[in-house]
Amino acid sequence: MNTRFYFDYISPYAYLAFTQLPAIEQRTGRAIELTPVLFAGLLNAHGNLGPAEIPAKRAYIIRDVLRLAHDFGVPLQTPPAHPFNPLPALRISSVIQDANLRSTIVAAIFGAVWGRGEAIDTPEGIKAALADLPLEIDELIERANTLDAKNTLRQQTERAVAKGIFGVPTILIDEELFWGVDSLRHFEHYLSHGNPFDTEQVHKWENLPSAATRRLSK
Amino acid sequence: MNTRFYFDYISPYAYLAFTQLPAIEQRTGRAIELTPVLFAGLLNAHGNLGPAEIPAKRAYIIRDVLRLAHDFGVPLQTPPAHPFNPLPALRISSVIQDANLRSTIVAAIFGAVWGRGEAIDTPEGIKAALADLPLEIDELIERANTLDAKNTLRQQTERAVAKGIFGVPTILIDEELFWGVDSLRHFEHYLSHGNPFDTEQVHKWENLPSAATRRLSK
Repeated sequence: MNTRFYFDYISPYAYLAFTQLPAIEQRTGRAIELTPVLFAGLLNAHGNLGPAEIPAKRAYIIRDVLRLAHDFGVPLQTPPAHPFNPLPALRISSVIQDANLRSTIVAAIFGAVWGRGEAIDTPEGIKAALADLPLEIDELIERANTLDAKNTLRQQTERAVAKGIFGVPTILIDEELFWGVDSLRHFEHYLSHGNPFDTEQVHKWENLPSAATRRLSK
Repeated sequence: MNTRFYFDYISPYAYLAFTQLPAIEQRTGRAIELTPVLFAGLLNAHGNLGPAEIPAKRAYIIRDVLRLAHDFGVPLQTPPAHPFNPLPALRISSVIQDANLRSTIVAAIFGAVWGRGEAIDTPEGIKAALADLPLEIDELIERANTLDAKNTLRQQTERAVAKGIFGVPTILIDEELFWGVDSLRHFEHYLSHGNPFDTEQVHKWENLPSAATRRLSK
């Protein structure tokens, strides 16, 4: 069974989790496949709101991300604008079939945008981020601009939605989801010990009646 | 400066974090004041959605909560219905001025609803939860039903909103917020080391321009 890491460059949490994958792969001996998805597409599909769309939450998250970067000892710089359009970078990362090359490209783009705070929302920005890699970069950018590449990213996002994925980063293994930086340790626990609950307990909760509904203001 | 723990009985994450407070108080030598707030009021004020309001997120959270209960080694049972009306229990917890007695009451109610899975959304449920405590329970329930008690809870919620609090559990100390179970360790780090970032870095991020807006579906 594949293990997949769903991400969007727009998310600093996805960057932070991504920086931990090599160590996790080494500890667990498990290859993790990188799957770009459009976070905005997940939000739309689930009728959810992004953290940056609630001002108080956005203010909080800035501090939380900086705390986590400190925990991990990884560099964190903010890009020139946020949110930004992640589509060109996501499509480029989607058209690469070779897992190792894809991983190298994703690392280069994440490092540029959140490690060094560079813009990656234009072809120029992406070229600069990938400048050191042995790529036919113009040809790659052209391929990422085809209908085919657009469909690939859309399908990846739709399949993620169908799996119940509502945010990034999320790791999917078997049918289990691990959402967010703090669930990385739960993912590792799952690999070695399985789930620490029984399915009955989950089903009971899933089927609880609701005894109250929030009156939505406005 | 007071340290406050903002909670609503409706949240299993608030229960999980609450179970950790005694150990944290012991390690840090710091008293944490319990402040009931209405989570639905926070959501309304910020235009936010509760996790149980997104079906995919609700499904995920059930598993996440069970994993965290396992991490902490604390019992977790689901109440007969969820969401439920937390107002009577929150108001009762708000009218007790004595910090120790309040703490005992909150522990009893949290233990009943999430530790043993009992209903606490009726006077009968609350009476059962508090049966072992030396309280004039009928008088307490009456007091919790006064306009005064209702205003106290409303004001606590409004003051929380004004402090930027958007979810439960949240710890407030100085002007710093620590939201969620996973931020408890950041709270402890803050007590001993302060913030691991400089204010300039935060302000820069807060003032970043936006280069993309999500097209909301529907």
